Amino acid sequence: MNTTPSQQPKAVVLLSGGLDSATTLAIARAEGFACHALSIDYGQRHAAELEAARRVAARLGAVQHLVIPLDLSAIGGSALTDPDIPVPETPTSGIPPTYVPARNTVFLALALGWAEVLGAHDIFVGVNAVDYSGYPDCRPEYIEAFQRLANLATREGVEGEGFRIRAPLIGLRKEEIIRRGTALGVDYSLTVSCYQADEAGRACGRCDSCRLRAAGFRRAGLPDPTRYRETPATE
Amino acid sequence: MNTTPSQQPKAVVLLSGGLDSATTLAIARAEGFACHALSIDYGQRHAAELEAARRVAARLGAVQHLVIPLDLSAIGGSALTDPDIPVPETPTSGIPPTYVPARNTVFLALALGWAEVLGAHDIFVGVNAVDYSGYPDCRPEYIEAFQRLANLATREGVEGEGFRIRAPLIGLRKEEIIRRGTALGVDYSLTVSCYQADEAGRACGRCDSCRLRAAGFRRAGLPDPTRYRETPATE
Repeated sequence: MNTTPSQQPKAVVLLSGGLDSATTLAIARAEGFACHALSIDYGQRHAAELEAARRVAARLGAVQHLVIPLDLSAIGGSALTDPDIPVPETPTSGIPPTYVPARNTVFLALALGWAEVLGAHDIFVGVNAVDYSGYPDCRPEYIEAFQRLANLATREGVEGEGFRIRAPLIGLRKEEIIRRGTALGVDYSLTVSCYQADEAGRACGRCDSCRLRAAGFRRAGLPDPTRYRETPATE
Repeated sequence: MNTTPSQQPKAVVLLSGGLDSATTLAIARAEGFACHALSIDYGQRHAAELEAARRVAARLGAVQHLVIPLDLSAIGGSALTDPDIPVPETPTSGIPPTYVPARNTVFLALALGWAEVLGAHDIFVGVNAVDYSGYPDCRPEYIEAFQRLANLATREGVEGEGFRIRAPLIGLRKEEIIRRGTALGVDYSLTVSCYQADEAGRACGRCDSCRLRAAGFRRAGLPDPTRYRETPATE
């Protein structure tokens, strides 16, 4: 990069601390954006993700990392926000109980508000519609609908250049995401994807997110740097 | 109403504590919904609105009132969330500084998540595109775009009956809103619309919201029950 931070266009990057969002941040940086990372402390089971997000933001050169507290357990309805709903440890059919109602819509709305204040036109989100858990708010038609909404919702959309919702992973398989991130220097040992990581960030190796991640490293032919509490389940 | 609460369909109603959202709640109740009122404690200047929301929810028979804390001052960019940006006391042109970036998108997203958990298909919001402040996220095309998004974003939208975003005030003038609410028994003395109400909920009488509200009562030919700190500015 030859540009100084002040010359770079700004982007807001939603950063969970998991593998996908870390890769997305690396892609946004490689495209030349000054990246403003946004994490939401939403009462997730896997609070170790937020620590991971802090490490990833620092390591990958985000110019700022904002963590907004928003307790979605007041709404509940998900294994990730309601301790009475267990995280499945075997594959499920349909949309799984780890689906958090309207989560990406809430997160993208907050990213949109921040982008408008910062003067950023690009909002990056690490959703993926290939090796994913079947969440409706990870599909291309959802991302397109949010971009349309964003440009109707805001002063910038009405009077200015508007917003682009960038989902660079949306059509990639997990192993392709891992290869791309590895090429960009992402240290995946910093990331936490597990739905029920312990306080130290060690993964269960059994939830859907762990299974997808482990299979991705295997198929990419790369060593899996994930720290597990015990030996992970094989596929 | 002859139905018991358990037979009534549920609705989520966004309730700010102002005149419009109180009227919207009364309309939803009159349509026979069991109303789950949702307020967001977003760091607004006019925190007296939240107290008003509690009074209105109780008086108009909401079956539940949820207040979710979400500090939008972390994002800033509005006279309502950043104390360094003054609330205008004379009319402005264009979208005014009281515009809060992506506010309605954030609020509707939270309402959507809660509606999905409750099993509600109707989400009521008191936006108005006639006597309003020119906010982009109060226009019919915005509401239509959000409804479309809602039905792509959620399990219920993909697998079920889906969601309707109901904005019953969107085409009404302020005096029509006040007449409608008065006919439905809304006690507007409970509501607070002022952008800079004091802790006791007394209005400034000078901000855009106060002007629109005062003119509405005048044009409706109804006494204005608003409690002012001093004599309001005339139009």
